[in-house]
Amino acid sequence: MKVSVFRKAHFNAAHRLHNPSLSEERNLELFGLCNNPSYHGHNYMLEVKVKGEIDPETGYVMDTKVLKDIIRQEVQEKFDHRNLNLDTEEFRNLNPTAENIAVVIWNALRKRIDKNLDMSIRLYETENNFVEFDGK
Amino acid sequence: MKVSVFRKAHFNAAHRLHNPSLSEERNLELFGLCNNPSYHGHNYMLEVKVKGEIDPETGYVMDTKVLKDIIRQEVQEKFDHRNLNLDTEEFRNLNPTAENIAVVIWNALRKRIDKNLDMSIRLYETENNFVEFDGK
Amino acid sequence: MKVSVFRKAHFNAAHRLHNPSLSEERNLELFGLCNNPSYHGHNYMLEVKVKGEIDPETGYVMDTKVLKDIIRQEVQEKFDHRNLNLDTEEFRNLNPTAENIAVVIWNALRKRIDKNLDMSIRLYETENNFVEFDGK
Amino acid sequence: MKVSVFRKAHFNAAHRLHNPSLSEERNLELFGLCNNPSYHGHNYMLEVKVKGEIDPETGYVMDTKVLKDIIRQEVQEKFDHRNLNLDTEEFRNLNPTAENIAVVIWNALRKRIDKNLDMSIRLYETENNFVEFDGK
Amino acid sequence: MKVSVFRKAHFNAAHRLHNPSLSEERNLELFGLCNNPSYHGHNYMLEVKVKGEIDPETGYVMDTKVLKDIIRQEVQEKFDHRNLNLDTEEFRNLNPTAENIAVVIWNALRKRIDKNLDMSIRLYETENNFVEFDGK
Amino acid sequence: MKVSVFRKAHFNAAHRLHNPSLSEERNLELFGLCNNPSYHGHNYMLEVKVKGEIDPETGYVMDTKVLKDIIRQEVQEKFDHRNLNLDTEEFRNLNPTAENIAVVIWNALRKRIDKNLDMSIRLYETENNFVEFDGK
Repeated sequence: MKVSVFRKAHFNAAHRLHNPSLSEERNLELFGLCNNPSYHGHNYMLEVKVKGEIDPETGYVMDTKVLKDIIRQEVQEKFDHRNLNLDTEEFRNLNPTAENIAVVIWNALRKRIDKNLDMSIRLYETENNFVEFDGK
Repeated sequence: MKVSVFRKAHFNAAHRLHNPSLSEERNLELFGLCNNPSYHGHNYMLEVKVKGEIDPETGYVMDTKVLKDIIRQEVQEKFDHRNLNLDTEEFRNLNPTAENIAVVIWNALRKRIDKNLDMSIRLYETENNFVEFDGK
Repeated sequence: MKVSVFRKAHFNAAHRLHNPSLSEERNLELFGLCNNPSYHGHNYMLEVKVKGEIDPETGYVMDTKVLKDIIRQEVQEKFDHRNLNLDTEEFRNLNPTAENIAVVIWNALRKRIDKNLDMSIRLYETENNFVEFDGK
Repeated sequence: MKVSVFRKAHFNAAHRLHNPSLSEERNLELFGLCNNPSYHGHNYMLEVKVKGEIDPETGYVMDTKVLKDIIRQEVQEKFDHRNLNLDTEEFRNLNPTAENIAVVIWNALRKRIDKNLDMSIRLYETENNFVEFDGK
Repeated sequence: MKVSVFRKAHFNAAHRLHNPSLSEERNLELFGLCNNPSYHGHNYMLEVKVKGEIDPETGYVMDTKVLKDIIRQEVQEKFDHRNLNLDTEEFRNLNPTAENIAVVIWNALRKRIDKNLDMSIRLYETENNFVEFDGK
Repeated sequence: MKVSVFRKAHFNAAHRLHNPSLSEERNLELFGLCNNPSYHGHNYMLEVKVKGEIDPETGYVMDTKVLKDIIRQEVQEKFDHRNLNLDTEEFRNLNPTAENIAVVIWNALRKRIDKNLDMSIRLYETENNFVEFDGK
């Protein structure tokens, strides 16, 4: 019998959509305004879901205070108030679309979460655009 | 490895819950206030989910600007500022419950989305009542 | 020393924007899609604000359970699941714009609220469009 | 072909996280501020999901007015404006974590919902912390 | 020329509505379920508004990081995860209605905010019930 | 008798807090992470309030479709998907704090709105931080 536990967190970052292996023309065609070379930005909202059995001692699947700290270390300290394209290793050569950011965050969090727990994430770029990734 | 991409859209419509093959009494019994012959209405909020592999060139599962246009053509241009019972082919003989509206919208969108992508939708009739359909 | 107390309530209604003293052409020109003769509809959200001194016995400016009942009687029982143009006395000859609905609701509530209390309302037609009225 | 129908409801309750079979020290270590012996509280938000075939007569998977009444009887009448630890049978000897509350609510609702319908719930303790349970 | 700056913060607390100078019967009559002797609780949301001239050096009316710290010290450290009636000096003899909590919080914050700045607060007890106080 | 009409709009932009007339050290001290030379970004949400008499012909204080177009031209076309510091005339020498952005937007909109109407704006930088300006 498994319960899923969710925790939300926020970070504010600049980015531009840009594939460095394509021409400027192709990038503009693909990404339009999102390709602006001076960058634009978002309030990203992350929702992390961890699924597993309830520990009978604590009544927790996972202590959300611990989950909160992991998210702070692996996501907020790396990406909050940063330029994803310029300031991070992860997106130096990877186009920071919501999809790619979600995969990067999932991989970073997955290493820190108990192997007995399933994990998936949802990442909101705006209220109207968001993505989900569960590693499969 | 598949990522899900979500896009939201809104439309405002009038409707009444009414099964034309039943008596007035039975309709009133089943649907109460929602059966009001003069109609009432809602701000519908639609959430479309498309799941697939990330295209390595774009970093997208699907360009959400394209998805936004498909939703506009298939949903908003047909239903926004309309009376679902009177103004649409789809609900002339089909009771416009949230469930039935979701099935109709799913079918309209499914035809326009790449076969390699899974698709499901969520439709909010009010903040407290909503439905989900994935075609299965 | 005065505190303001707020209470929210919802109602779902059909309407069309239409000034019966103008021609069909002028109505269409002014109101576009909102003039659809078959009606469209909204989830209206009402926020009522009542301002006054705190009663030292209760610690209340006004019991919000009483305010909730007044809103139910004066607003929800009249307008919820109704067609504003067809089913209500108030909008038979008054164009049910958000502005006019707000004035009508304010007048109905004002009669029921203690004269020592100030009252204003906010009415959301959609998440992006709303109005405020304080009687002045 | 199955559609999921969702209904939201709210209740406000006091609780403390406390495992009566552990020492005071261990409880404090595990639960920190949440172990406060005088209790704290939350606005809980419950989202119930019911999945099944659309009834061709009504266009409903399940009448959400009926679902609303079941939620009122099984959840709100038991837990709203209560102290979960002191006032309820369910949490006299069970630590009222969000996970445990979700299992208790799921079990109470499951008995009242048609066996042909799948059921899962989501329970928000705060905007940032929530859980999901589907009985498996 | 004055700009208003707003900052939100949250705290979770237990309380009961109870005027210790009245009889049990009168308390129950006035406050109903909210008078439950075992307490219930809320996720309180506080919105602090500070109005003043923009400092030409910083472009700030007030550094919201400083405002955030003042709110943490004066509100969250006192009330978060507490029982307002039992654990706080402020509500030992004062009924913790939203109105009274707002006055108490306003007084605590007012002492810490520059006299040249106007200050008002909004306090949400639930999504549907909230109050506002500006000291006048 | 005056009614206020509100319209919301969104734009996503990069910025850094930086006063070019101060030293790097002083900028870092004042603005911390927000001073990051590579920029960060936000989903800005703008709420425009226009207050005036209801036009008896239309039932409108102001047609919100017209207001929507003015906001698009004066705000979204200038700032959406831009870097406020690099790409805009307005913030080349003005620190783009929420306060300063609000004053700039208010001035741009004020020129386009009928002199008989009062106007104020609210600008959300994040869900927790926002500002209001009415020109006084």
